[in-house]
Amino acid sequence: MYRKKDLQKYAELIVKVGVNLQQNQIMVLHCSTENSEFGNLVMEEAFKAGAKDVVRIYDDERAQRLRYHYATVETLKDIPHWQVDLWVSNAKKGACFVWLESDNPDAFLGLDGKKISEGRKAWLHARKEFNEIIDRGENQWTIIAIPSKGWAKKLFPHETEQNGMRKLWDSIFHCIRIDTPDPVKAWEIHTETIRERCNWLNEIDFRTFHITNASGTDLIVEMAEDNLFCGGADVTVSGVAYQANMPTEEVFSMPHSSRVNGRVISSMPLNYQGVLIDNFTLTFHDGKVVEHSAEKGMDALTALLNIDDGSRRLGEIALVPYTSPIRETGILFFNTLFDENASCHLALGSAYPSNMKGCLSMTMEERKAKGYNDSVSHIDFMFGTADLKIMGITREGKEVPVFSDGNWA
Amino acid sequence: MYRKKDLQKYAELIVKVGVNLQQNQIMVLHCSTENSEFGNLVMEEAFKAGAKDVVRIYDDERAQRLRYHYATVETLKDIPHWQVDLWVSNAKKGACFVWLESDNPDAFLGLDGKKISEGRKAWLHARKEFNEIIDRGENQWTIIAIPSKGWAKKLFPHETEQNGMRKLWDSIFHCIRIDTPDPVKAWEIHTETIRERCNWLNEIDFRTFHITNASGTDLIVEMAEDNLFCGGADVTVSGVAYQANMPTEEVFSMPHSSRVNGRVISSMPLNYQGVLIDNFTLTFHDGKVVEHSAEKGMDALTALLNIDDGSRRLGEIALVPYTSPIRETGILFFNTLFDENASCHLALGSAYPSNMKGCLSMTMEERKAKGYNDSVSHIDFMFGTADLKIMGITREGKEVPVFSDGNWA
Repeated sequence: MYRKKDLQKYAELIVKVGVNLQQNQIMVLHCSTENSEFGNLVMEEAFKAGAKDVVRIYDDERAQRLRYHYATVETLKDIPHWQVDLWVSNAKKGACFVWLESDNPDAFLGLDGKKISEGRKAWLHARKEFNEIIDRGENQWTIIAIPSKGWAKKLFPHETEQNGMRKLWDSIFHCIRIDTPDPVKAWEIHTETIRERCNWLNEIDFRTFHITNASGTDLIVEMAEDNLFCGGADVTVSGVAYQANMPTEEVFSMPHSSRVNGRVISSMPLNYQGVLIDNFTLTFHDGKVVEHSAEKGMDALTALLNIDDGSRRLGEIALVPYTSPIRETGILFFNTLFDENASCHLALGSAYPSNMKGCLSMTMEERKAKGYNDSVSHIDFMFGTADLKIMGITREGKEVPVFSDGNWA
Repeated sequence: MYRKKDLQKYAELIVKVGVNLQQNQIMVLHCSTENSEFGNLVMEEAFKAGAKDVVRIYDDERAQRLRYHYATVETLKDIPHWQVDLWVSNAKKGACFVWLESDNPDAFLGLDGKKISEGRKAWLHARKEFNEIIDRGENQWTIIAIPSKGWAKKLFPHETEQNGMRKLWDSIFHCIRIDTPDPVKAWEIHTETIRERCNWLNEIDFRTFHITNASGTDLIVEMAEDNLFCGGADVTVSGVAYQANMPTEEVFSMPHSSRVNGRVISSMPLNYQGVLIDNFTLTFHDGKVVEHSAEKGMDALTALLNIDDGSRRLGEIALVPYTSPIRETGILFFNTLFDENASCHLALGSAYPSNMKGCLSMTMEERKAKGYNDSVSHIDFMFGTADLKIMGITREGKEVPVFSDGNWA
């Protein structure tokens, strides 16, 4: 393991800032078997902060790989009731959720992508009730990364295992501001900066964004009605602030599900269930992807577009400056949690209710009428480049530069 | 890890002999997070042998320790439905069950034994339906050991971690006959020997056993009506043989729940939920423990006797020669799976239905009328010594020596 003191600070940040655990609350803590030891640190911090209980859920990508390889599609699609109940029952009890993410980007390399996708799709469908509860905004949750040997090896293939792990810890700690004297304070300031950007965007309330760069991206994104830019801390309906993702550098909102037109070219690879999709192009017509191509991972791209109707439409647009500290590490993390905070991105799939005013009290039909996209999946991909230009167009037709040369204009 | 080839042989033995997995059967595989890698070997062997699916359940004693320390008794007693459903639903689907046991005997040292016991008791009550399904004899199951760092450190405190682990692997592999050229064949022969001993005991059908030694044990154990000695392979109602415990050297049957009188002195320590109970004496009157004392772990002994009424009565008597290979390793494993196969033992708590003729088609009341003991717990303790004498008394009152000087007479 790494320096005990830093690990402790990280565990504390997860509990107090990430998920902001409340007195007598249950924490559901998901981590890999490889990282059960760090999970124990988080668990102890949670109990010290007043957790009623900590429910541990373990995962092991090597075991998952065996299932994906040997089990039939029918077996993979047959999600047992207890597995759903585990998440749903705790969400109903008002638990908070922590995902310690340490995926090896190559975990499922060489497997049948279609089979994995079918299994994954069934799981997303099965846990829809859980997602709906989470969307009500009553539970805090956070996704935060820790190193694994497989991930470190992918990023630093020429280092020893020990050095690779140390480099990955260092990079994560830098991106998450653990290397500052008071990480909790640093997060307060950072969150405030993001908040100011959101306020500016929400005051102007752009109707459309026109995105272009020299690579060939030329996309017109009209926003959903009553859309709201969000970023930094989330807040539950009862007013508890939390960080759904750490790190986070983005401000994001909701495109209209049927008013996106043009072409977007990816600027970073997308890791979808262990398969890398790279240098891909999506062409939109009236919100829907009508053409797609990829230099690498075409099958996986097709599979993720075919999950359901909503997985062909946008649920999110996120603005991240090209000078983001994650980008500045110079590392391609092969992990959305980091890479999405290195660059502007879009998401195929479900929109976030928090990005539409009054969304939580609307029916799905009412939401959709305003441009909300519904899907069981939500998959980010990056399009931000050093020469990215985004022109905002107000409801009055006035053009206002939002991004130029990859950064806030 | 150990030599890959031996690990592979072990994984194969677990799947083919231990649990004897059938085509298209689900395997539920329980192991510690520390041993997830060996678990993957077993998982792959299971899939190769035709498993429909392998459901992984992970545990971590250090995480359990945090819960026992920080959570309230009320929280520990509140067993969520999904946790029970996980076991019950798979049992109903005809799954087989593998427990890879690697408990650190000192895992819960220094904690409040009463609190642990309350939590444990609630869990045993909650999963009673699971036990009832298993008792019907439709599912194969096996408990089998693998090393953990904590366990190895306990047994070999002066060795390096690596050497300790190697010694423990070696010992386990010797006891389980992995060090023979053909372990599967070795188990066939071994099982046949045990079978012959069972047949002899069942043909004579002793009414009573009189157990004595120089340490002060003087116990009269009258057997339950229609009791049956079992040992070696178990067989499901549909005829699938399996090894519920590996290693196994015992032949065992069912004492009458209210016809045991006298005094028995433990010959080896008993590890109960991380607390060692050592040099203890139990005095029985009409089947029930009416007095108990222990040089060490008195509170834990009291707690285990107080689980319910049945936990004060015997559910099993097992005969194991003092020359058992487990005893011959000279190691005290601090683990019942091994230590019970080093020596004659008794169990406080529930009897096994397999030890009574026709038991599965009887109601609990009918069983009890014949001397069946019912309890949520089942805890073995050793009384076999080098000078142990067991005299069998037939239904006609004839005395037949069964054990002398610790071995079969």
